[in-house]
Amino acid sequence: MFPEVEAVAPAVTAVFTTVLTEGPISRVALARRLDLSSAAVTKAARPLIEMGYLEELAATERTGPGAGRPASPLAIRADREFFVGVKITGDELIGVVCDLRAEVRTTAHRRLAVPQVDHVLIELGELVDELLDGPGDYRARTRRLGLAVSGDVDRSTGLVRYSPFLHWHDLPLQERVEKITGLTVTVENDVKALTTAEHWFGEGVGAESFALVTVGAGIGCGLVVNGRLVSGSHGVAGEIGHIGIDVNGPACHCGGRGCVEAIAGADAIVRQAQAAAGRPELRFDDAVALARAGDGPVGAVFARAGDAIGSGIAAVANLVGPSRIVVSGEGLAAYDLFEPHIRAGFQRQAFGAAADCPLSIRPLPFEEWARGAATVSIQALVAA
Amino acid sequence: MFPEVEAVAPAVTAVFTTVLTEGPISRVALARRLDLSSAAVTKAARPLIEMGYLEELAATERTGPGAGRPASPLAIRADREFFVGVKITGDELIGVVCDLRAEVRTTAHRRLAVPQVDHVLIELGELVDELLDGPGDYRARTRRLGLAVSGDVDRSTGLVRYSPFLHWHDLPLQERVEKITGLTVTVENDVKALTTAEHWFGEGVGAESFALVTVGAGIGCGLVVNGRLVSGSHGVAGEIGHIGIDVNGPACHCGGRGCVEAIAGADAIVRQAQAAAGRPELRFDDAVALARAGDGPVGAVFARAGDAIGSGIAAVANLVGPSRIVVSGEGLAAYDLFEPHIRAGFQRQAFGAAADCPLSIRPLPFEEWARGAATVSIQALVAA
Ligand SMILES: [Zn+2]
Ligand SMILES: [Zn+2]
Repeated sequence: MFPEVEAVAPAVTAVFTTVLTEGPISRVALARRLDLSSAAVTKAARPLIEMGYLEELAATERTGPGAGRPASPLAIRADREFFVGVKITGDELIGVVCDLRAEVRTTAHRRLAVPQVDHVLIELGELVDELLDGPGDYRARTRRLGLAVSGDVDRSTGLVRYSPFLHWHDLPLQERVEKITGLTVTVENDVKALTTAEHWFGEGVGAESFALVTVGAGIGCGLVVNGRLVSGSHGVAGEIGHIGIDVNGPACHCGGRGCVEAIAGADAIVRQAQAAAGRPELRFDDAVALARAGDGPVGAVFARAGDAIGSGIAAVANLVGPSRIVVSGEGLAAYDLFEPHIRAGFQRQAFGAAADCPLSIRPLPFEEWARGAATVSIQALVAA
Repeated sequence: MFPEVEAVAPAVTAVFTTVLTEGPISRVALARRLDLSSAAVTKAARPLIEMGYLEELAATERTGPGAGRPASPLAIRADREFFVGVKITGDELIGVVCDLRAEVRTTAHRRLAVPQVDHVLIELGELVDELLDGPGDYRARTRRLGLAVSGDVDRSTGLVRYSPFLHWHDLPLQERVEKITGLTVTVENDVKALTTAEHWFGEGVGAESFALVTVGAGIGCGLVVNGRLVSGSHGVAGEIGHIGIDVNGPACHCGGRGCVEAIAGADAIVRQAQAAAGRPELRFDDAVALARAGDGPVGAVFARAGDAIGSGIAAVANLVGPSRIVVSGEGLAAYDLFEPHIRAGFQRQAFGAAADCPLSIRPLPFEEWARGAATVSIQALVAA
């Protein structure tokens, strides 16, 4: 965990994680929550307090049976350390600095002319400098940087195996960015990063199971089951976009047929809207405008897409039964067009009590992806 | 865990479970595997040895670095205790006696005239007596009985909430059977029971993630993710049969459209085969015979069904990425008709490396379900 602690006790990690995600919390409650003795909690908390990661809040009087010494809840010292998070898209870098509780302290953006690696790395270096050396002077207390990239990412080695939108293959991104920035870098798939943020600091806090579905250029899904992020034995998990929901539907770029993404991904919507309106120059924003203006055939394209997403979400609910599902992503800027059809498709295909699973459907500011990247670097501190 | 042990240490359960599913295993290997000290392993193993559940095998010389005292691997004493398992279907009871390692020692069957509760309970009582008092004399070392029932089962209370094939509603099965047999009874959903058996003693041993798909009257799925059976926050999980794979397909009894079960369940196959052959009296076995004899339209019904199952299995692989998937069930008596189409549907819809997930497709002897029930009672001993 922390290089400063010589003997790495699992209890130290457990105490830190629990105070981080559920604190402030008393030692007694921690001991109960973690199935540890009070002595073990006290021992695990000591180095964390000494290093300044945890602090004891003012004692509050305990009441009720067994009330004895006043309890001093343990809390995170949020500004003990800061973390940079950057989401890399094909045409933009979105960066944030977060504190230990993943609160965003400052943000910055860079437009990218092309997603060419050397260009991206130069812009990234400048973005990080701008974030750390600007107002707030975060440089002195920042050691870690998290990067969120779409596609197939090996977090353990920091390798981007394949990122379709960026056209990157087998890029040792962690190594390259560590050289440029001097920071300890963690690279993660963007949907997983966002899911971790929601699980640790958002709607998923404390949930044993939880799903985040992202709607945009692709349709993705992050899954927490039995308290942990699902990563897939063969490197694939959460690919809700490639569940086949229409065996007679359109071919998908993955080789499948009638995949959710082949019906509801941004490209698929544009193609279908072009055909429906008979206007081959139509773009996504035009399709949204037409549907909002009441164009029947273009509206039907969004309805069909929403229904496909809802049907895919029902598959998630039927198979793993998350306690709640958050549906978000930049595609949900067209929230009003999708939302009723997502709910209808979900309700039709959710089996029995799976239909009780609450769906939060909401647009997602792009900074949230960067915050997800920062969360991954907080997690790397805890788990390293 | 064991009533005889006063202070129930989690380490005792962990040691017992690991020796049970992965033993024989040395104390050193156990300590490494469970992240415990050698002293903790020795302390946890002592009461298990004293009660006769574990034994030390003859010491073997250790070699290699650090070789010191000879290691005596710990092993399960399989015949320390026996367990009855019974699978209850609409027209039959299938019973087994298993030892602690879930090896089947004896089997017995009862035909049921009707799935009426009082009748089933009388037959069940006689079946248990036949199993325990017959050759082998298992009575003296048997305290537990596991029951496997299809449908919505609350294992913690032993209540069968709803079993469609048995037409049971809110039946306190555990309580009723404990009165009749005097044994400690555990009731579990049949697919979950079978999945537990495969996870502890079958193809899933040691797997962090694992799926079992059952094909028969219904299409079910048991899932192990992050090392534990998935039970679903809202009581629903593994409902692969109600994933919608054809948005324009037939209506399903669940209210969905184009569900896997509405295309590939036994009833659906019979209905489609009747229509294809123009013979409304056709039964499942007739359909199998026709397809095997080369009847094109009836063969196409099995092909479509197999493809639907494969597509549903791909959804499991795309979402949770199990290390392996076993496909089994009484429906796979028609294995030859299904198998190539299951594989084709899976390969088409599995995303990227998810297609690497090995599929074991094999028929399932009905006794396996009863063994699953016995496994659940072994698990109840360990976890109680
Ligand atoms: Zn696809
Ligand atoms: Zn259905």
